Amino acid sequence: MTAGAEPIDSFWRELEEDRLHEECAVFGIFGHPDAAAITALGLHALQHRGQEASGIVTYDGSRFHAEKRLGLVGDNFSNAEVIERLPGSAAIGHNRYSTTGETILRNVQPLFAELETGGFAIGHNGNLTNGLTLRKQLVREGALCQSTTDTEVVLHLVARSQRNRFLDRFIDAIRQLEGAYAFVALSTKKLIGARDPLGIRPLVLGQLDGRYILASETCALDTIGAKYIRDIENGEIVVISEEAGKQVLESHKPFPPQRARPCIFEYIYFARPDSVVGGKSVYDVRKRMGHELARESMVEADVIVPIPDSGVPAALGFSQESGIPFELGIIRNHYVGRTFIQPTQRIRELGVRLKHSANRSQVEGKRVVLVDDSLVRGTTSVKIVQMMRDAGAKEVHFRLASPPITHSDFYGIDTPERDKLLAARMDLEQMRKFVGADTLAFLSVDGLYRAMGEDARDPARPLYTDHCFTGDYPTGLTDMTGESHPKQLSLLAEAG
Amino acid sequence: MTAGAEPIDSFWRELEEDRLHEECAVFGIFGHPDAAAITALGLHALQHRGQEASGIVTYDGSRFHAEKRLGLVGDNFSNAEVIERLPGSAAIGHNRYSTTGETILRNVQPLFAELETGGFAIGHNGNLTNGLTLRKQLVREGALCQSTTDTEVVLHLVARSQRNRFLDRFIDAIRQLEGAYAFVALSTKKLIGARDPLGIRPLVLGQLDGRYILASETCALDTIGAKYIRDIENGEIVVISEEAGKQVLESHKPFPPQRARPCIFEYIYFARPDSVVGGKSVYDVRKRMGHELARESMVEADVIVPIPDSGVPAALGFSQESGIPFELGIIRNHYVGRTFIQPTQRIRELGVRLKHSANRSQVEGKRVVLVDDSLVRGTTSVKIVQMMRDAGAKEVHFRLASPPITHSDFYGIDTPERDKLLAARMDLEQMRKFVGADTLAFLSVDGLYRAMGEDARDPARPLYTDHCFTGDYPTGLTDMTGESHPKQLSLLAEAG
Amino acid sequence: MTAGAEPIDSFWRELEEDRLHEECAVFGIFGHPDAAAITALGLHALQHRGQEASGIVTYDGSRFHAEKRLGLVGDNFSNAEVIERLPGSAAIGHNRYSTTGETILRNVQPLFAELETGGFAIGHNGNLTNGLTLRKQLVREGALCQSTTDTEVVLHLVARSQRNRFLDRFIDAIRQLEGAYAFVALSTKKLIGARDPLGIRPLVLGQLDGRYILASETCALDTIGAKYIRDIENGEIVVISEEAGKQVLESHKPFPPQRARPCIFEYIYFARPDSVVGGKSVYDVRKRMGHELARESMVEADVIVPIPDSGVPAALGFSQESGIPFELGIIRNHYVGRTFIQPTQRIRELGVRLKHSANRSQVEGKRVVLVDDSLVRGTTSVKIVQMMRDAGAKEVHFRLASPPITHSDFYGIDTPERDKLLAARMDLEQMRKFVGADTLAFLSVDGLYRAMGEDARDPARPLYTDHCFTGDYPTGLTDMTGESHPKQLSLLAEAG
Amino acid sequence: MTAGAEPIDSFWRELEEDRLHEECAVFGIFGHPDAAAITALGLHALQHRGQEASGIVTYDGSRFHAEKRLGLVGDNFSNAEVIERLPGSAAIGHNRYSTTGETILRNVQPLFAELETGGFAIGHNGNLTNGLTLRKQLVREGALCQSTTDTEVVLHLVARSQRNRFLDRFIDAIRQLEGAYAFVALSTKKLIGARDPLGIRPLVLGQLDGRYILASETCALDTIGAKYIRDIENGEIVVISEEAGKQVLESHKPFPPQRARPCIFEYIYFARPDSVVGGKSVYDVRKRMGHELARESMVEADVIVPIPDSGVPAALGFSQESGIPFELGIIRNHYVGRTFIQPTQRIRELGVRLKHSANRSQVEGKRVVLVDDSLVRGTTSVKIVQMMRDAGAKEVHFRLASPPITHSDFYGIDTPERDKLLAARMDLEQMRKFVGADTLAFLSVDGLYRAMGEDARDPARPLYTDHCFTGDYPTGLTDMTGESHPKQLSLLAEAG
Repeated sequence: MTAGAEPIDSFWRELEEDRLHEECAVFGIFGHPDAAAITALGLHALQHRGQEASGIVTYDGSRFHAEKRLGLVGDNFSNAEVIERLPGSAAIGHNRYSTTGETILRNVQPLFAELETGGFAIGHNGNLTNGLTLRKQLVREGALCQSTTDTEVVLHLVARSQRNRFLDRFIDAIRQLEGAYAFVALSTKKLIGARDPLGIRPLVLGQLDGRYILASETCALDTIGAKYIRDIENGEIVVISEEAGKQVLESHKPFPPQRARPCIFEYIYFARPDSVVGGKSVYDVRKRMGHELARESMVEADVIVPIPDSGVPAALGFSQESGIPFELGIIRNHYVGRTFIQPTQRIRELGVRLKHSANRSQVEGKRVVLVDDSLVRGTTSVKIVQMMRDAGAKEVHFRLASPPITHSDFYGIDTPERDKLLAARMDLEQMRKFVGADTLAFLSVDGLYRAMGEDARDPARPLYTDHCFTGDYPTGLTDMTGESHPKQLSLLAEAG
Repeated sequence: MTAGAEPIDSFWRELEEDRLHEECAVFGIFGHPDAAAITALGLHALQHRGQEASGIVTYDGSRFHAEKRLGLVGDNFSNAEVIERLPGSAAIGHNRYSTTGETILRNVQPLFAELETGGFAIGHNGNLTNGLTLRKQLVREGALCQSTTDTEVVLHLVARSQRNRFLDRFIDAIRQLEGAYAFVALSTKKLIGARDPLGIRPLVLGQLDGRYILASETCALDTIGAKYIRDIENGEIVVISEEAGKQVLESHKPFPPQRARPCIFEYIYFARPDSVVGGKSVYDVRKRMGHELARESMVEADVIVPIPDSGVPAALGFSQESGIPFELGIIRNHYVGRTFIQPTQRIRELGVRLKHSANRSQVEGKRVVLVDDSLVRGTTSVKIVQMMRDAGAKEVHFRLASPPITHSDFYGIDTPERDKLLAARMDLEQMRKFVGADTLAFLSVDGLYRAMGEDARDPARPLYTDHCFTGDYPTGLTDMTGESHPKQLSLLAEAG
Repeated sequence: MTAGAEPIDSFWRELEEDRLHEECAVFGIFGHPDAAAITALGLHALQHRGQEASGIVTYDGSRFHAEKRLGLVGDNFSNAEVIERLPGSAAIGHNRYSTTGETILRNVQPLFAELETGGFAIGHNGNLTNGLTLRKQLVREGALCQSTTDTEVVLHLVARSQRNRFLDRFIDAIRQLEGAYAFVALSTKKLIGARDPLGIRPLVLGQLDGRYILASETCALDTIGAKYIRDIENGEIVVISEEAGKQVLESHKPFPPQRARPCIFEYIYFARPDSVVGGKSVYDVRKRMGHELARESMVEADVIVPIPDSGVPAALGFSQESGIPFELGIIRNHYVGRTFIQPTQRIRELGVRLKHSANRSQVEGKRVVLVDDSLVRGTTSVKIVQMMRDAGAKEVHFRLASPPITHSDFYGIDTPERDKLLAARMDLEQMRKFVGADTLAFLSVDGLYRAMGEDARDPARPLYTDHCFTGDYPTGLTDMTGESHPKQLSLLAEAG
Repeated sequence: MTAGAEPIDSFWRELEEDRLHEECAVFGIFGHPDAAAITALGLHALQHRGQEASGIVTYDGSRFHAEKRLGLVGDNFSNAEVIERLPGSAAIGHNRYSTTGETILRNVQPLFAELETGGFAIGHNGNLTNGLTLRKQLVREGALCQSTTDTEVVLHLVARSQRNRFLDRFIDAIRQLEGAYAFVALSTKKLIGARDPLGIRPLVLGQLDGRYILASETCALDTIGAKYIRDIENGEIVVISEEAGKQVLESHKPFPPQRARPCIFEYIYFARPDSVVGGKSVYDVRKRMGHELARESMVEADVIVPIPDSGVPAALGFSQESGIPFELGIIRNHYVGRTFIQPTQRIRELGVRLKHSANRSQVEGKRVVLVDDSLVRGTTSVKIVQMMRDAGAKEVHFRLASPPITHSDFYGIDTPERDKLLAARMDLEQMRKFVGADTLAFLSVDGLYRAMGEDARDPARPLYTDHCFTGDYPTGLTDMTGESHPKQLSLLAEAG
């Protein structure tokens, strides 16, 4: 940016910040002649989980090959040239949305390391809650860290393990971890997938032309025409290898048996609506959240307007339950790419609407129910409510298809500090006033569980990781409870 | 592209080709300190009308400044640096989708010319039907053409006019034109807007901070917070200048009075749903097309599924009229940017679904009504119907919210040659078989006019340019009826 | 450049400005299967004549192909990809150092135009002295100019000619020109070379594998292994075509016979030392200038130090004539590419020596004779003399192997305005004081002619264009003597 | 490169390969407000020692900042933007010519590591002869290597040292090294310079505005206007820090005292002619090599022609000693940048001369003595001799200003495998026939020592590292004598 250019105006920065950010995606395939190309397609289908950077590592029988790029998969991995630089029939890939570490190339995954016995690469979706503590201990022992990701500690733990077999070293390493992870790893002989003991982050197994595939969501399997086999279980490690020309899958369970507790936010926000997570259609669940929401907090109105695109399924559910017509009262500009820099105060004051605009014909003179999936900081909601009023809405009722977010996440979702969360700072009436709506209502926690097919949440044995709404963190939080979380993970500032 | 890379597989090329392509957008502002920045924002709001290239020309009181780029406005005109290279308080801009001439930089508009009396720039939405004939005559007289656009002939006609005043030269020039145009032009003293005698292509007048704005659609005014004043009339030239520190607008009507006949496709497909064209909400009209379609060709079914995003308003209308629930049975990947090159036959055979995928939970075991806005070649429809069947649809009924397209356009819409148009080659039953649907129905021409608020089409005095459905071309077609349209407009092949 | 960055420090800008700048190079080949590749190699060999931009135009029997790039030939035309975009067996090329018009792509030559009868391209070394006058008249008649080069008027004159054959149109056009030119032009059937009536700028004819070549200097022929045939004569047009599979060369002389008067600066500075210009070895001539200089202004000294690399041949000549040893007392850094921006005042004050440095061991305690080819503004000389003194030189004697430059050039050499020329502002003693040397001497005009093999300059019939030293301009100067030379050739400012 | 493009023709590849390649350069400055800018200028002055990549690391009091780029300093570090990304008053920099490891960004130095006690960066000129052995042992112990350079082992050794102070850790580390090195290192508090026990690679100390500077050669000091203080001694570590606002320099000698034995090739080929190495002017030494060569192997001839630019000083010395005139019989093209790809066999057969061409006027009919600094593979020499004959030379006598190279280097000079060295494969007469000269002569080893100011080489206590001529390697060669040198240092192939 040239000096003198003023920063982007607050509206759009806020809009960007007022979301739960996606986390990451992983993908792997073993024994396929087009391993890199298929991995690129799989990562593209998982782009919604991370847009900052992507990487693919392949193994061709004698060497590993890596390509890492900042930006979208479709911009970086879509041409034949880059795919040709990734030979080999085994590949793993990763889309990154940074939750730890700056987004610079050395942080882009999969990470790679060379052991005495050969190389291996690893990609990680999730976040370790003792990553920093492990890192400090490793540095104290003379380890040199090349990235600022928490994932790198896994490499060092594997390298320092006294075991001989790669799988034993890997189990040695993950036993020391705390937090959430779905890993794909590639050694010279094996493709490995692993999910943390609670199964917080998702990972599914598929098959294409008889070859195994690992992916964060089923939509990646659908995109490439692969068959869904099953979800990797919580605490399970699957090891895919080839014996006598046939693919073999072994399952290991190195942890004590435990009930799964997947992250409820995959259903509310992260997963793609056409994915099936834990056996449930994400689209169906979201619509049911709309149904429950309509039941809990009905209101007399003329039109149900979704906040595009996140609020659409819940708004359809709300409309169907309530009988109030669903209309596109807000239109999204499909060509929002990079952000506009707005050079002068005058421009900023225009209230420019680059991403959304009101569809006045559906709003003017109407009682509008706005539906969105969740409320984070609330800064966007203020603007959207105002945009409805500017377009002539008679009343604006705001409905959220999930409960108030009162606690930060430490498992791979980029939530703001707790004191930035609107629901952690205000009660319902304060929030209503803040966003400027005539009425405001959230789905209840029990309503959320009902949408998931349960009667209610059982506080003794909750079925989902739902601390953002309840404060009930399912694992230890070593890094957070020990010393204060440092802002700066590296002494080295390095570009791209 | 590296040699050896195979071309993109036919599915996606077809999907891209099986659309009516957008045409162009124009924008202009006079007397505003942020002229270039506002023009960039306006072009961004009009991006749906042309994505191949954009240009902005400004005048700073002594010099004109031009920036032209291939690609999206948001990628090319969003930073302060490029805006700083465009000083001046008057600006015009253009988004290009090429209907004549290759997309190379010298063809990107606005075009610029220097007369003895000063410079002027011009941007054009539309297509001339005697452009080639005029071009040949000009070359015969010793004119040197720098571009291969039909717009360039206007520059030469203005330069060769014997009149003194720029406006008189401009009127001299456009009187020689045949076809469709909405022009914005900038001289050293004036901003000019002009619409062809029938008003085929749209152009609206707005105001921001007391300064006049011209734009192809009202959504550009909304995006920048400007006020809509009125549509430029068919055959009208508006001339905006400054006198004694105040903006003055003169209206000229150099053609014999004629009834307007705007292009009906702006309502069906081109205009953004939140725009108001000719006083009608585009979103409303599209929903009414869905209503009419449901009335004309109802079917027993379980679910109405729009083809995203073009079919959404009509599908909502169909659902509301029919009472059959509207569901997102097809999910669109929001991150489709550049196209993937698929390096091997194996990959192509996967039937990869990069842009859309079926939302199986809404389709499986259901009787599905697919709704789209229009049918061009039909190649995509085949794939989409098959995708529904693969996802388990029990029945697939295909409904189009416009009549069969039987004739090519010559006014700025990029339609295929006539023999590529499905409805020009087949009858209804043949088309149904081709796309593989259980039933197929189009909106009737009279149904289309009813959606526009008329009783029916009056063949004696049709209110819209609708030749694509009727073969009734409203202007002469000199280039097409004279000698055959040459494929190659220039002897010079030049990159970017 | 980021705002806030300060401009390059004066030393290096001055050093760059304190040269006569090269002018341009042309090259053409007809009927060779590798026409574009050979043209690229030829332009590379002629890179010393222009480094700002280059272009190649080829004709493949049905279309012309053009590639134009800012920067060096070796950086832009060295890969197979660009050469593959230039198919065809006829090609012309051009290296640009701008003497008129900004260096932007639309000004990069060869220029191209389409006539009713076909296309043609042209490249120009030289400068017209009535180009602006012609341009104004053309614009008055309705011509649209696409570039700001004087060369474009030739295109318009050819296009407007009433003659039928291309050659006749070309002759029509050049008869209206005044000034200096060596042209290469390519039509669909012919390669044409032309030199102005006085032969001010050079152009030679060669042959490779039986195919004719045109080039600015013989070094381009040597580089590609081609045979030198002869110099194109002053006022001659050569037309190369193919008849019955054989190349035919016609010579036309459309001007009244006149004695040649080539530019003397080709020998002093522009041509490459290994070129033979007008039958004379450039290296030999430069050494003889050193001989004559030593004879005219001998001095007692310990060492002859050339200013690299321009002063080397003359310094060798001086050394051989005087018997004083030649030493590299100044070392040139071979890696000076783009210029360093020096961000702070402190850095600027260091007196950083990026291009040259003193070789102290050859200078310290010595009486040094510095030899250079010519003196323009003198600003560099000041620094070089000071650098010698800083390195411990006991005495510094400055010798120039050409006479004082007292007049600007208008024929394609980029000289400063007259009042920036040191010798136009000061007498010899003032100049000596200015540069800080112990003694200062120039070669006399007669000495210069002696080095060329003459007895002396005959003022009645001088054999060379030598107005920079004598004020004797050999052609009319219509643009300069009419109205004042405008600073701004276009109303349009456009980037790259 | 596009597939299908043929590789560069053998001539030019050979010419490139037929050199001793430069090795690397280091530079450091402490406590200067413009540390990064001065380091960039210093690296630019040292560009002749390595052109593949460069890097700069700065420390700003709280963070380190790194910028690493492939290509030339002047292309990558010359603008204000990159310098602004390198804040801080302490900086070290490195130019790379790869002797171990591929040239990819992760191999570009300075390398950086974070210890428990803070970060440090290091740059290395030279080559370790036990680097691979150390690396294997470190990997066995669980170290993760991020680069394929031998320099990285130093980072790990420092990280694993049990000492507390950074300096003690550093001494711990370098005591384990074998081979040649000049290091610059930067910690949070200190700038460190170190030279191996024999002082094989050079390192000098300078001062600018009272701040210490370290550089490979004095020419870097001259370029920035700094004062030369002294050479770092063999086996010396200098530690520069600040105490009470004043710079302090400590000298440490952690090795047993030993006589220095610097590399003789710095004088023959590597160092810039204006540098003073070990107290001797490089230019003077080279001229004296020419003197000695003339004394040892005089020949009757008409002209002494240097091979530019490497042979110029020795040719001047030869000319002065012999009295035969020195002439530029070969002209070098100054614009050789990237290499031309020559797309067809026809082009390759032209014998294109991109880099040099004969200056026929100085060669034709003459007895020519060609002088170069050294002979490696001899492939270029064949072409140059032939070029002289093609230009009409009557006789060609080839003289080399250094002895025959019979042994490979392992200390940082990129020599070919021994069996590619011409002098290791042939006797003098065979070599003469191979290059096609009428006579061929090398400087003797004693002549070389005489040029250095000695009487002769004392085999018992040779003063210089001269194994390339004598086979007398001054250190152990652990990596070479142990197991065979592996071709592939990493399992990971990664682009730039």
